This record gives sequence, C-alpha cells and structure tokens, in this order.
Amino acid sequence: MARIIECVPNISEGRRPEVVRDVVEAAGAVPGARVLDVQSDKDHNRSVLTLVGDEASLPAAVLGLFEAALARIDLRSHQGEHPRLGAVDVVPFVPIEGATIADCVALAREVGRAAAERFGVPVFLYEEAASAPHRRHLEDIRRGQFEGLGEKMKDPAWAPDFGPAAPHSSAGASVVGARMPLIAYNVNLGTSDLEIAKRIAKAIRHSSGGYRFVKAMGVMLEERRVAQVSINMTDFKRTPLHRVFETVAAEAARHGVNVVGSEIVGLVPAEALIDAAEHFLRLEAFSPSQVLERRIREAE
Amino acid sequence: MARIIECVPNISEGRRPEVVRDVVEAAGAVPGARVLDVQSDKDHNRSVLTLVGDEASLPAAVLGLFEAALARIDLRSHQGEHPRLGAVDVVPFVPIEGATIADCVALAREVGRAAAERFGVPVFLYEEAASAPHRRHLEDIRRGQFEGLGEKMKDPAWAPDFGPAAPHSSAGASVVGARMPLIAYNVNLGTSDLEIAKRIAKAIRHSSGGYRFVKAMGVMLEERRVAQVSINMTDFKRTPLHRVFETVAAEAARHGVNVVGSEIVGLVPAEALIDAAEHFLRLEAFSPSQVLERRIREAE
Repeated sequence: MARIIECVPNISEGRRPEVVRDVVEAAGAVPGARVLDVQSDKDHNRSVLTLVGDEASLPAAVLGLFEAALARIDLRSHQGEHPRLGAVDVVPFVPIEGATIADCVALAREVGRAAAERFGVPVFLYEEAASAPHRRHLEDIRRGQFEGLGEKMKDPAWAPDFGPAAPHSSAGASVVGARMPLIAYNVNLGTSDLEIAKRIAKAIRHSSGGYRFVKAMGVMLEERRVAQVSINMTDFKRTPLHRVFETVAAEAARHGVNVVGSEIVGLVPAEALIDAAEHFLRLEAFSPSQVLERRIREAE
Repeated sequence: MARIIECVPNISEGRRPEVVRDVVEAAGAVPGARVLDVQSDKDHNRSVLTLVGDEASLPAAVLGLFEAALARIDLRSHQGEHPRLGAVDVVPFVPIEGATIADCVALAREVGRAAAERFGVPVFLYEEAASAPHRRHLEDIRRGQFEGLGEKMKDPAWAPDFGPAAPHSSAGASVVGARMPLIAYNVNLGTSDLEIAKRIAKAIRHSSGGYRFVKAMGVMLEERRVAQVSINMTDFKRTPLHRVFETVAAEAARHGVNVVGSEIVGLVPAEALIDAAEHFLRLEAFSPSQVLERRIREAE
C-alpha cells in the first residue's frame, strides 16, 4: 500500500525569499515527494517546510534540501529570535499512514548518516531516534546554540551520532529524528474564570501528573471572554483526543462549568478523529481498513 | 484536487467465474479506474463490482464493462434468485471525496446515454438521476423483471431515458443512476428483549416517522443474546451517524436499557466518522481541509 510519511524540516532562513524558494525547489524536485506547505518567519529568521512522501522518496528530497540550504545559509552571519544550531536546524520524520514510528526512526538514521557523510555536517538524533535519554529533547541538544556548539561538542556526552566531531564552519550541526504527529487542540469553557482553565490544564498535563502525551496551559480568549485549556497532544495514539476531551469536561463539571466547544488548530491526521468516533459511537470490532479512502489507497 | 467517485455495477452473472473475470478485466483496463472489490453470489447468479475512479476514467471503464458483459451474458437463459432487468443490471455512481451527488448525476446521464447509443440497450435513470418520481426507486423500475420488460415498456410511463423503446434481446435494459454511499450500521442493546429493538427501529426509520435517510429493523443476535437495531443509512450527510446513535441511546434509556456497542458492516467513508468526531468533541469552525490526508490528496 501507499505509505505516507511527513517530514518537517526547519531551516535557518526566513528573510531572503529567494533562498527559501531555492531550498523548497530542491526538496520538491524528487518524484514521489511533495512540499505541502512553507511558513517563513522574519523575526525568527526561520522557515518550516512540510514535505510528504515515503521511505523511497524522502531521503533524496531531504538530501537535496540539505545541499541547497548549505550552499546559501551561513550561520556565522545568521540572526533571529528562535534558537538554532544549524543551517538545516531540525528534521523530524512523522508517521501518517501505513508507517510506524519505527519506520521513521530508521528513516531518520538513514538520512542523518547520509547527510553527515555527504556534507560533513555533524548530526544529532533526537526524540524517538535518540541514542541516549539526555539527547532525546530538542531543547537540550540545542542549548548553547550555534555559537556555543564548538565548546559543547568537546564533551563526549555531546559527540554527534554521525559526522565530524566538530561543527561545520558555516552550517553548524543538524538534529534529525522521529516523532508522532502533533495536534494543537484547545477546549473552550463556559466561564471567563482563567483560574479554572489553569487548574484543568494542570490536571491533564504530564509535567504535573496528568496524561503522558499532553502539554497544556490555561489561557484567556479576551474577545469572547472565554477561558481556554490550550493543549498540545504529542502522541494521539497513546493519549487519545477523546480521553483528553472527556477529562477536561469532567474536571470542568467539578467546577460547575460546561465545555462550550473545542478547536483543532492546523492539521490533524484522520486517524485521530476516526479514533474519537470509534470511542463515542462505541464501535465494536472496527478496523481502519473499513475506511473507504484507506482501502482505496491500500489498493494503489 | 483528486476526486474519488465510486461505481458499483451489478451484473447478472455469478456462476461462471471466467465470465466474471472477463468483465472485471474490461472494467479495470482503463488507467485511473480501479476495481477494489468483486463479490459473486451463485444463488443470486449475480456479481457486484466496486470500482473507483473519477469523471475522466469511469465512463470508459463502465462502457468497457458493458461491452464485455453484453458479449457473454444472455438474459434469456439466466436464472437466479435476485430480481434483474438486464445483463448489466444496475450501475450507481457514488460521490466519495471532492465530488458531489450532482457530479454523479451528470456522470450517470453521460454513461447511460453512451451505453444506449453504443450497445442499443434501453437505459433507465434512477435515484438522484431519475427523470420522474415514479422512476426513482430501483424496485419500481425492476418490477416485472426481464421477462415482463417488453410488456412494461409499452406503457409511456416506462419509456427509457436513453436508447430503444423495446428491450435488447439478450441484454434486457440497464438502470443507471447516482446515490449517496450506504452505511450498514448496527446498534447493540444491553437486553435480549427483541421487542425493544423493534420499537427503537420503528422510532428512527423513515417509513414510520423517523429520520429521512434511515431504514431500520430489530433483530436478535442469538449467540450473544443481544437485541440489535439493524440500520441502513442512505445519506450520512443529511442524517448523520451520531444523531442516529444518540437517538437510539435515548430511546433505549426510556426502556431502561443501555447501548452496549455499535458496528459498521463493510466500508464507511472517512467523512462519516469525522463528522461524528466533530459532533462529540464539539469542534468549533472545523474544516475537512484540516484533515492531513485530505490536504495531501488535494495537493496531488
């Protein structure tokens, strides 16, 4: 069947559109890989590409992106608000359909090794592809940024997974890995009491004892005078959307407050919503291959 | 974007596998159209094909199927339990993604006209493509079957929409039309009292005052000792799954009974489940284009 894997490279260029265009063109020049979206931010001086393809097409697309980015981006003269370590700063692979996180880990290792060999850039593996627990989180790998990287890499704990033991002079280092799709999900409460949203956020987020794959905070929608639980779901297969929704509703009820609605910001994998339907409809013995569109793609 | 239209031709041959194979091969020989499934029934002496494609590929695929079926099937010697009017008995077009029921009506007219012209078979349009209310339902068009067709067509009310005013000698007539996808959906009750399932079925089905696009009956799952409301959803956009589920649950509660689960039999369009998730999660301002897989196909 046709597999769908997403790749979301972050490059350290958001001010020169002609450079971004060259990089996007290089990434999109491989048959079977497509650039779905490009977002550039001038303040961050950074662009985020969304590519989709499979194990066959994505390595060449990402290596083409490396080549174009390294030829045009020099970190020694790069300034921006967003922390960064390299010209091609972060490259996560994300399983969407017919592919597992293990497939994406294998892809991250393959692409990381090839980029290091071909371009002489040190590569750190992160998230599910990390080679040690202290190297799992992006913020830990990136701490010290490009400017502190030479010093940081002298510590054996920060030897790269692939490539030279010191930063590339202009391109720094790259962080390549695998993660589940993120879902930005907000639940709106029938109250203007921000404290209640904050309490619920605390109840559901991992860092304070809640669900393992939930980050959350309480925010105020000033215009609507609605308190909101603003959520990042980092693994919807293991902490599903419907469970978070129902827990928020139960915690809200304890304060005498209703859930007035929820929002998905940006894109969501169909499976996350289908899992929710399966839950609420109490479906028995349901298989994803019963979804017509999926059957069609399996036959492709 | 890539449109997906389904076509489900029913042919009057379910006993000679070599004939079915020829017809399937002819239907699948057109680039862009694919045969997803074939079900043959010996008792009915009938086969049901599931094709997918778009407006560009399906006409040629269906005309190829007509040609192969008419060359090998002779209704004068056909026997089977299932009512039938022609060698290519029924051809519904069904919108799945990026296509509307109006697109499918247009396709039915195009293919019906072409089949009549090319093969000299009278064609009746049905369901959403019907040219008069009395010709909307398949069972009305098919009443009298192949054997009674010559007599029936003498009545001006049963003049064909396309093609000759009398049946084709060996191929009879064909019924071509457009309908929404069917969903076979069952809700299982926490009781072995069949009467309760029958009462709920009566409450929700169109024929006795219920939802417009619901057919339902109460049945007994003998092995599990569970009474079931067995449902056919004939238009999930206008009568959605979640509304039927919730109405069944409310009616069951009135009898002091719980819904223990539900089942989807066979295939279901992703949209039907996504609509259910949108309902139960109380999603605000959700758009189908936020579904990642859909965005990917739109970019194809």
